[in-house]
Amino acid sequence: MIFINFKAYREAFGRNALELAKIAENVADRSGIYIAVAVNYLDLPLIARNVSIDVFAQHVDAVEFGSFTGSVNAEMLKEYGARGSLINHSERRLTLADIDFCVNKLRALGMNSIVCTNNVSTTSAVSALKPDFVAVEPPELIGSGIAVSKAKPEIVENAVVSAKRICKDVKVLCGAGITNHEDYVRALDLGADGVLLASGIVKAKDQKKALEELAGLL
Amino acid sequence: MIFINFKAYREAFGRNALELAKIAENVADRSGIYIAVAVNYLDLPLIARNVSIDVFAQHVDAVEFGSFTGSVNAEMLKEYGARGSLINHSERRLTLADIDFCVNKLRALGMNSIVCTNNVSTTSAVSALKPDFVAVEPPELIGSGIAVSKAKPEIVENAVVSAKRICKDVKVLCGAGITNHEDYVRALDLGADGVLLASGIVKAKDQKKALEELAGLL
Amino acid sequence: MIFINFKAYREAFGRNALELAKIAENVADRSGIYIAVAVNYLDLPLIARNVSIDVFAQHVDAVEFGSFTGSVNAEMLKEYGARGSLINHSERRLTLADIDFCVNKLRALGMNSIVCTNNVSTTSAVSALKPDFVAVEPPELIGSGIAVSKAKPEIVENAVVSAKRICKDVKVLCGAGITNHEDYVRALDLGADGVLLASGIVKAKDQKKALEELAGLL
Amino acid sequence: MIFINFKAYREAFGRNALELAKIAENVADRSGIYIAVAVNYLDLPLIARNVSIDVFAQHVDAVEFGSFTGSVNAEMLKEYGARGSLINHSERRLTLADIDFCVNKLRALGMNSIVCTNNVSTTSAVSALKPDFVAVEPPELIGSGIAVSKAKPEIVENAVVSAKRICKDVKVLCGAGITNHEDYVRALDLGADGVLLASGIVKAKDQKKALEELAGLL
Repeated sequence: MIFINFKAYREAFGRNALELAKIAENVADRSGIYIAVAVNYLDLPLIARNVSIDVFAQHVDAVEFGSFTGSVNAEMLKEYGARGSLINHSERRLTLADIDFCVNKLRALGMNSIVCTNNVSTTSAVSALKPDFVAVEPPELIGSGIAVSKAKPEIVENAVVSAKRICKDVKVLCGAGITNHEDYVRALDLGADGVLLASGIVKAKDQKKALEELAGLL
Repeated sequence: MIFINFKAYREAFGRNALELAKIAENVADRSGIYIAVAVNYLDLPLIARNVSIDVFAQHVDAVEFGSFTGSVNAEMLKEYGARGSLINHSERRLTLADIDFCVNKLRALGMNSIVCTNNVSTTSAVSALKPDFVAVEPPELIGSGIAVSKAKPEIVENAVVSAKRICKDVKVLCGAGITNHEDYVRALDLGADGVLLASGIVKAKDQKKALEELAGLL
Repeated sequence: MIFINFKAYREAFGRNALELAKIAENVADRSGIYIAVAVNYLDLPLIARNVSIDVFAQHVDAVEFGSFTGSVNAEMLKEYGARGSLINHSERRLTLADIDFCVNKLRALGMNSIVCTNNVSTTSAVSALKPDFVAVEPPELIGSGIAVSKAKPEIVENAVVSAKRICKDVKVLCGAGITNHEDYVRALDLGADGVLLASGIVKAKDQKKALEELAGLL
Repeated sequence: MIFINFKAYREAFGRNALELAKIAENVADRSGIYIAVAVNYLDLPLIARNVSIDVFAQHVDAVEFGSFTGSVNAEMLKEYGARGSLINHSERRLTLADIDFCVNKLRALGMNSIVCTNNVSTTSAVSALKPDFVAVEPPELIGSGIAVSKAKPEIVENAVVSAKRICKDVKVLCGAGITNHEDYVRALDLGADGVLLASGIVKAKDQKKALEELAGLL
């Protein structure tokens, strides 16, 4: 499984976002690998209508409908076709109570939650909330090009073991520094169910080629 | 001038949002009053394409393009047709440095900023940043149905005088509790350039009638 | 075990704080019950020197020594004699990463962590971080005078079971609405190791009598 | 005027803090320059009792007495002898509404507010709140050793002019990168009333010598 976080990169916003989502759809079809994208709120409606792969939000606010100026809640995401949302990304940390709220809300709506964590112990903690996915990303490696699966394999292995001990159904993604097929395979070898990455694809000179390589098509 | 904040109200989201925006457009046409709407990120692309009135975001993040998962910046809003953004609403307060960043960024992009404040002194402070609009809303009256222009006219008057002393071009809106034409007229009499309101229209049994009444068409 | 959170109550600040801490010490001696107090930063140095019971901070920042204007870290607390700190109180929520940081830091320094949570699932999550204590406090009951152990006994029971399943050594406190001996006993009956309370003692007309009653001395 | 922010530096905490405060008192006496220190909450009570110079907090929470676990308000600071507080330091940013609250509260208590800002426009904005001091510190120069008064003299000059135009009584400090007497004199030449600095003194090999040099005693 490959999740691509478009972040607020210009290369993955607006027209670029739709193109990259189409590339992801194409590579998913050809490789047979599950690929999903996490896109900007403004891009989400258009992309969700135009690709067959799962589209996630990058964040969801821990609120219901009501007096919450500027907030986007889970039901809103669902209405526009999102499959779920990233929660607690290192660039958008939440309180524990809000993570819990969002995981429960998404589950109640039949949507998927991907909760980001920074190490093994927070991965265990989040697993107790029974999200669909936990994505462990050592913050110091995010955007570094140094794959966590290479540089700190023990974090991935321990995160997987710890997470599944607490909630056997939780899927574990590993993030931070993933850029190529070797990193991806290594992550799976370490027990991860998939990877979450961003700049490795989004900032690549040739996004299509980068994703094909990641998916093992080259 | 009338600005309607759709907040995260169910009555002003999705299909409801487009309908309400169309009502606003219609009432603006018939009354000759400038009416604009501040909508949810997810609704913004569709609404901006489908109405001729100005469409604002309810919040904008103080970032450029880059590694900012979950963020929406001013350029993104512009690309999707937003006229500008509310900033620092009481339900989404920002640091002063971030307010300043957003006001400058919107100005540089030829967009409009509406900075919300809670009293006379913060209205003065914000005016020094030279936004297009300052919207003063005593938090205790927001959603109360008690119009600030009636209950605390001196706040509106003093906010107007203080704001224009510091920046003569800034327009002052008054918010909190505005629901009917009388409140609106009173706000203008006190020197305000317009009103910012939400529940008074959005939560009305008959939104169209409520807006027509506010605009003096009934 | 009884933990009294002095919050920012005037009745538990400055001279009042020292008096109340002395009362707590006295009641602890006479009842044989472990009683500890969580006091304001400014009061902490004096109180820690003047009572024999454990003194906690109400919050600790997730930082080391360094460029962190306005922050108080765990080592600082230790230097002034604190036994540990409350973490993530509902009035001072932290991100999960910061809760994890503080729990680890306090443990490394031989200090005690008391992490506040709002329900059963967040109690489980926090237990995975292996703090010394988890204090479950349904936010809607805090300061209500309605004891969680009476109003929602299943929350206490389930919190205890869930917490110990994940970390058998973690001690579970229950908070929110606890005011008298009956509430306290009921909490213990439900499996809690103790209670965390604030207004029930601090805002009592006669703090000493209230604490004696709570501890079963009357 | 020289304000020394002790931050959360180990070299300015606990015993070190008292020593450095004593050095500041001594240099103030000998140089005739007003010198004040902004210290950690835990150190504040002891230092305020033991030096004759003004002692400030590094932050104050925008709350009254009440249910505010972990908060320190202005009255608490006053009770322990603080002269006032830094507000909105770049390492502890506040919302505009909270800055306003704190400035007003400190003024009402006869205490002094020092509000930190990051550029000319936010300095103007803060001046409208009528604090006692505005300390302009371009964030990119904080801790850099490159004095703002040398590297960006126009920021200091423009901040002074803009601030006094809006509130003639406000005193302007300049911060960021100040380390020696030349930087200090240049700041005064540019119209500043004084300087706010931290690492330049706190992290100096010989703190006393560094402060004597800054004050022009060497």
